[in-house]
Parts: sequence; structure tokens; C-alpha cells
Amino acid sequence: MYRPEIKVLDCTIRDGGLINKHQFSFEFVRAVYKALSAAGIDYMEIGYKNSKKQFSETDYGPWKFCDDEVIRKVIEGIESKTKISVMVDIGRVDMEDIKPKIDSPVDMIRTACYVKDIDKAIFMANQFHKLGYETAINIMAISKDRGPELDKALDQVNRECHCEVVNIVDSYGALYQEEIEELVKRFQKHIQNKVIGIHAHNNQQLAFSNTIEAIIHGANSLDATIYGIGRAAGNCHLELLIGFLKNPKFDIRPILDIISTEFLALRERIEWGYIIPFAIAGIMNEHPNASIAFREGPDKDNYRMYYESVAVPSAGE
Amino acid sequence: MYRPEIKVLDCTIRDGGLINKHQFSFEFVRAVYKALSAAGIDYMEIGYKNSKKQFSETDYGPWKFCDDEVIRKVIEGIESKTKISVMVDIGRVDMEDIKPKIDSPVDMIRTACYVKDIDKAIFMANQFHKLGYETAINIMAISKDRGPELDKALDQVNRECHCEVVNIVDSYGALYQEEIEELVKRFQKHIQNKVIGIHAHNNQQLAFSNTIEAIIHGANSLDATIYGIGRAAGNCHLELLIGFLKNPKFDIRPILDIISTEFLALRERIEWGYIIPFAIAGIMNEHPNASIAFREGPDKDNYRMYYESVAVPSAGE
Repeated sequence: MYRPEIKVLDCTIRDGGLINKHQFSFEFVRAVYKALSAAGIDYMEIGYKNSKKQFSETDYGPWKFCDDEVIRKVIEGIESKTKISVMVDIGRVDMEDIKPKIDSPVDMIRTACYVKDIDKAIFMANQFHKLGYETAINIMAISKDRGPELDKALDQVNRECHCEVVNIVDSYGALYQEEIEELVKRFQKHIQNKVIGIHAHNNQQLAFSNTIEAIIHGANSLDATIYGIGRAAGNCHLELLIGFLKNPKFDIRPILDIISTEFLALRERIEWGYIIPFAIAGIMNEHPNASIAFREGPDKDNYRMYYESVAVPSAGE
Repeated sequence: MYRPEIKVLDCTIRDGGLINKHQFSFEFVRAVYKALSAAGIDYMEIGYKNSKKQFSETDYGPWKFCDDEVIRKVIEGIESKTKISVMVDIGRVDMEDIKPKIDSPVDMIRTACYVKDIDKAIFMANQFHKLGYETAINIMAISKDRGPELDKALDQVNRECHCEVVNIVDSYGALYQEEIEELVKRFQKHIQNKVIGIHAHNNQQLAFSNTIEAIIHGANSLDATIYGIGRAAGNCHLELLIGFLKNPKFDIRPILDIISTEFLALRERIEWGYIIPFAIAGIMNEHPNASIAFREGPDKDNYRMYYESVAVPSAGE
């Protein structure tokens, strides 16, 4: 018995690209699109639409910028019902780069923001909506912003925003299932006219179970990535999520194939997954940046040292 | 706000020993005992009490047999409040090997059984109880035995068994949190005079969240292992569990230390954790043996092949 409203968005290239500056090869991204299409995944988020004035094309790969013509080449000739999504960050996009939907291979634009930037996010999402795109707002780092400011932001989204989806983003992989339940119910209470979604991080191996928890309470938009790739500990594993969802439109086998042929080798070259400093960051409800930096240092496997650097309070108040 | 009734049992050596025929070095086991003691863990399960008539001491290490004098040497001279547990399997123990508690360093004996063997398990647990031990029954593979036979077995345990603890064992790593909730409530309904516990496997990265789910609904005995070691995908990670529990008696740092110094290197020599055939076994609610055998074969990373071997029904009814 499946819930047909549930949509799965794969953000392998977008969130995974945070590990390698979005320097995936063209062939790799096309192989991912092919696998997701064959598996029946609803959306593929192919990267960020970032400003080339702010970020150099020498430092970052093409999935940091997501030019329409590059996307066209990725999807060309592949039979697919999978829609294309891109993400934008507040203050990092040139709004004039976004063409009307009718001229673009992109179907959905998701705006990521912190609670404090909700005004800007609503403004941007409404612009994209006007251009004809499906739109979503992803409220990041929500484990740090759970006071009354969140209620006000949600009310405002409900009132002012034309987006179809609002996503709960546990950027720090800090939330336990009771907190997910509370957040989904709170989003539902404040927002009546949009789909609620979830984007979970896997610091404490809770991304999949938190996604299930969100489903139980009514979330219908689910983010996941192949083999859990994503910044630091990564995300909800797409192959586990498909194994759980009963909708016969999904086929797990193309995802298993691409894990065998591409992701095992990729995992040898770049690091994500269950690694103790990332787990500690989740336990401590901290941004992963410090743990990522620690993993690049000489003491990367001295876990007590990392723990004490974040867990022991500094002197003074 | 912690629940003081909650007890944590580490089964690193016992369940981890299923990977390497219990051939951990004496020094390693002593280091684990030292770390668990410093971390404030309530119990350490140090192995099986198996019959030497049935299993050869050439093939298996000492933690398959757990002679009292070996245990004494492990714990000697280490300051500790950590109690010692051993496990017995139905039909694999020589009952005359079990000395009265007063002559043994063992505090608790846990009897593992399937639902169909509940009569034997009750008989054995009552024997151990008479000898003065704390006792528990671990009902294994419970994801396969959830019909009325389970209710009858639980009623019988409630009526006839002197054990203090009954554990829900998700041997196949197949259960989702809603099923854990159902099982904990069902155990509580049928068993009024014992502690309910949980032993989860991590095939689908759900061992930790399922343990939390069991806690939410009242389970007070929790199994975990250092760095999640255990057969196939392994178990609930002790370091995550300590990070979640708020009891100030626990200290995560000795566990982090021993992961750094011992378990990272051990993981290079023996395999456990998130590995796709183990995940598939969990999704399919299958015993891990076939997936373990597959991992030892020439196609160990051909995940589609493994999936099709278990997911595609054979011809005939």
C-alpha cells in the first residue's frame, strides 16, 4: 500500500558536489541521470545555479553553475520521466541568469535559506514561480532555529509564497525521530497550502529513519542520494528509501548497478558517510565544517581530540 | 532528563565474534573491557558459552567458550562496575559447564532462541536463575515470527520464566520503527514482570533509530557494540547510543579512544557495516547468511546479481 503523492528527489550531484566542488565528469552525471530515470525517481537535482561573478569556473565544476545548455546535453536522448531540479542560495545567484521555464530544461528551482533569510527566499521563489518553474523552499539548519522565529517564518511562507513545497532540512544531522515528528506537525499546522518535505543528513545514521518518520506524519517530498553521498556524513540512501517505498513505479536495480559500477570507486576517492567526527558534529548539533576541516588535518582519526574541541565549553560565559 | 532504569549491554565481543570465529586476542578483549568500564557501560557480553564437545578449540577462539578462568584474567586488576554477560544457544551448551554464580565471574546469562524453542529457553533460563545468575531470554529473528505464536510464547515467558529481561532481537535488520513500536507494546501487554529490551541489527542503518524507538515506548535494556561491530551489517553503535542517552554516568571518550586505536584497524581486516548485500537482506527480511556467503564470492560487488537472487521468486507456488 503506497502513497501515490510521495515524490522522491535525488540530490546526488547537488549535495555530493559539495564534497568535490561539483567536479563530477559529464559522463558520470549522465550515468546518474540514466540510472535515476530507469529507477523511476521523480526529480534529479543536478546542482546549484550559482553566479559566475562570485565563483570561478576554474575552481568549481559545471554543476555549481548548471548552465541550461550543459543540462540539455546531460539529458539528451535518454528516455525519462525524471524532472530536473536546481538549487539556489540566497545572495549567490544572478537572477537575470534564470530564463523563463519555457526556454529551460529545468523543471524545479529550490531556494535554500536559513530562517532569518525567509523574506529573501520568498521573494526569490515567487520570481521563479512567475517564470513558470515549480518551486520549493528548503529551510536549512532547522535544528538551530526551533523557537518562535520558525513559526513566524512558516506563517509568512504560508501567506506570501507561491512555492509548492517546503522542506525541513536537518543540515547538521542532529535531529532524532521525536523531533522530526514535532517539526512535521508544526509545519503542517502553519502551512496548509503546500507539500511538506524532508532533507535529512546522516551524521548519526538517522537520515533514513528520520525520512521514514517524516513520511509517517505526512511528508510527501523526500530527498535522498545514491549510496548516501553528500557533504560530510551524507544523506538518506536512495537505495534504502526505494526499498521502503512500495510504489511499483520504482525499480531499485538501476541504482544498485550504478553503485557497483561508479559509487564504490568514487567512495575511494572522496570521503562521505559514517565517520566519527561527523557523528560527533551531529550529536553536538554543530555545522559539519569544523569536522570536515578536522578530517583534513594530521589528527583526523584522533576522535577524543575532536570531541573535546567541540564538547568542552570554553572558559567564561 | 535521563531514565535511570535504562541499562546498556555491550556485545562487541560476542556479536563481533560471529565475524571472526571469536578469535580476538586476549589483549584486545581486555582493552574493550577497560574501555567499557571507563565509559560506565552496565554489561559487557564477552562471548558464548558453547560446548567444547560440539565446537573445536582449534577452529574457534576462547570467546566461543568463555571459560571462567579466561574471563577472570580479562577483568583482573581493572576497576569496573561493568558486569559480565555470556550468551548460550539452545542445544549448544553443556549445562554441567555452568557453575553456581558464586564460583563464577559471570553475572548474567542470556539464552538466545527462536519462538519455536521458547520451552527450552525457559527451562534453561530457569536453571541459570537457580544457580544465582541474572538471566535474560533473547527472542531472535522476530521479524519472521510475528503471528499468534509470538503472543503464546510471551505469555509463557511471563508465566513460567524467572528471567529478569526479555529482548526483542531483529536478527535480520528488517524492522522499521512502526514495527518496533508495535513489538514493544506487544511485549509489554503480555509480559508484566520483566524488563523489555532490544537488540537491533544495522542492515538498513536502522539499528540506532530502532533502539531509540524502543526506548520511547519503554524498553530499558539496550544492546549495542563499539563502532557497530557485529555479524554482517553489525549492531547499534555504542558511541551513538551514549551520545543520545543523557545519563551522566556514561563517558563517550574511552569508546572514542578505542575506536581510534583498535577498531579502525580491525575494520580493515574484517568486514561489517553498511554493505549493499546486507542492506538487501534487511530489505527482504532474510537471514544474513546468504549475503555473507555472497560477499565471499567472486561477484561480491555485483549488487544486482545478489538482489535478483533473493528478490525474484522461484517458479512454482
